[in-house]
Amino acid sequence: MIVALSGGVGGAKLALGLSRIMPPENLLVVVNTGDDFEHLGLSISPDIDTVAYTLAGLANREVGWGRHDETWSFMETMDALGGETWFRLGDRDIALHVERTRRLKSGENLSSVTADLCRRMGVGPRVLPMTDDPVRTRLLTNQGWLDFQEYFVHQRCEPVVSELQFQGAGAAKAHPDFLAALADASLEAVVICPSNPFISVEPILAIPGVRAALIASKAPIIAVSPIIAGRAVKGPTAKMMTELGLDATAGTVAERYNDLLDGYVIDNADMSEVVSIDARVTLAQTLMTTLEDRESLARIVLDAAAVLRRRELRGLRHRTAQ
Amino acid sequence: MIVALSGGVGGAKLALGLSRIMPPENLLVVVNTGDDFEHLGLSISPDIDTVAYTLAGLANREVGWGRHDETWSFMETMDALGGETWFRLGDRDIALHVERTRRLKSGENLSSVTADLCRRMGVGPRVLPMTDDPVRTRLLTNQGWLDFQEYFVHQRCEPVVSELQFQGAGAAKAHPDFLAALADASLEAVVICPSNPFISVEPILAIPGVRAALIASKAPIIAVSPIIAGRAVKGPTAKMMTELGLDATAGTVAERYNDLLDGYVIDNADMSEVVSIDARVTLAQTLMTTLEDRESLARIVLDAAAVLRRRELRGLRHRTAQ
Repeated sequence: MIVALSGGVGGAKLALGLSRIMPPENLLVVVNTGDDFEHLGLSISPDIDTVAYTLAGLANREVGWGRHDETWSFMETMDALGGETWFRLGDRDIALHVERTRRLKSGENLSSVTADLCRRMGVGPRVLPMTDDPVRTRLLTNQGWLDFQEYFVHQRCEPVVSELQFQGAGAAKAHPDFLAALADASLEAVVICPSNPFISVEPILAIPGVRAALIASKAPIIAVSPIIAGRAVKGPTAKMMTELGLDATAGTVAERYNDLLDGYVIDNADMSEVVSIDARVTLAQTLMTTLEDRESLARIVLDAAAVLRRRELRGLRHRTAQ
Repeated sequence: MIVALSGGVGGAKLALGLSRIMPPENLLVVVNTGDDFEHLGLSISPDIDTVAYTLAGLANREVGWGRHDETWSFMETMDALGGETWFRLGDRDIALHVERTRRLKSGENLSSVTADLCRRMGVGPRVLPMTDDPVRTRLLTNQGWLDFQEYFVHQRCEPVVSELQFQGAGAAKAHPDFLAALADASLEAVVICPSNPFISVEPILAIPGVRAALIASKAPIIAVSPIIAGRAVKGPTAKMMTELGLDATAGTVAERYNDLLDGYVIDNADMSEVVSIDARVTLAQTLMTTLEDRESLARIVLDAAAVLRRRELRGLRHRTAQ
């Protein structure tokens, strides 16, 4: 069994690669819900949806959100009616939000709704929200504290970020199946996908007990850098790092995960950083353009995990915190 | 000024006719909200929507509900996700429901939301819900008590009706602008549109003060029969009358409005009923197939109202209750 920690687009790409080179039912994708929000009365879980659409083969790969088979009558009409249109909701996408919202209001929890909707969309791996409790990422910016989607979508990541907060994380319970998987003796690896560390991975790590469970896990933990040659493949990772006073490098991301990492996969372009990284580093092509790129990187990650497991058997575990 | 009382399709047709032969801003269409319901977490007002879409030129005239320019991605996806699909919601239609629901939840009342959305859709006349308070029509049937849309849409009016109830009507306040219009000295007529008396008009009449305000109004009250030659143009009116032990005739509908009617417009086919009707009867072609039919019937109604106003001036008012 493999556990992958994922945010949206970048994480979903690697999760898709993994799901195609291993029995998908053995893959548990634990997804950030710090991006979740209520909009137009609907409960929207952008990272869960991106992962689910990607794994179901329904994702719009051009824009990185929503579905490829989408129509836009709802949004056109909402515009004509004077409603809010800054968060683009396609006609098919909105069915998912309406149905999820209805089920959540009827008392079902997010993980159960997600499992059922994923099954109906034909998603092979298990997609699990990091928690069923509300966690909301907020950002302190030059415009004050902003809700995540206000910053991310409405203001297109333009405000300058100085601090992040995961509201509710301290009181949230990690999903028990997530903790159980980490404690499972048959777990072969924890993969931290190439997602934004600040807004995609750290909300997961902020939930009480998750860091400890990762550290206690017998499986190697291996991350893939979301930064290639000082730039993020997508999204505000590099911009945010600079604003937070950090170097926008693969090495800096490794430092964020410092006490957790056994292995780290970085791009060939970042070879010069190898010496400064406190984990077993694998160089690879980490830019995932084609489906083959996704599968190939997934193989490299699982191979690196296998090497780490053999080292562990020889008592050569890397992880500093153990 | 003219006040029209309306349910869905039939009423909307005559309201459209009226709006085209008079200054639309002088027409107040008071609409039944007993059909309103919550579905998939959305606040849906079917009669208001039918009237608004009809007056805006957006209605789907073939099926009698929804919009003519509709797409169906939402419903297709909802079906794939295992959600409820018995109440058909088009992609454009659902934008109206989502926006209305959001605004109602934010504390705005239904009449204000309706006025603004109608303005944005280009509706000329004022469309006013009979009340801003919740009224829910329920039907006692051979399957027990059913909510209106469960009976009307989900079960296609198949259950046998023995009793009707307008839940909440007793505690509802008629919209003050509705009562003010009835008391206005410049009101020229109250038109009871050819809607189902039991489920479209009587919920309006069931609100405390409405009957009294109609009776006290100086304007003539004139109804158009929804029954032609023993049959309803659309919907379960005739079936329901038979189930309730009533003759399915234009005359029976007049009896329902007995103490209110000054004038009554029935179809030429029902000439034989004239003698039994306790109001000034006008014979006309009441089937509204074309736009011209709608305008022509509207003219006949307004002409009949003018005759009744002249009689009133001569002290010849018909209405029995005055």
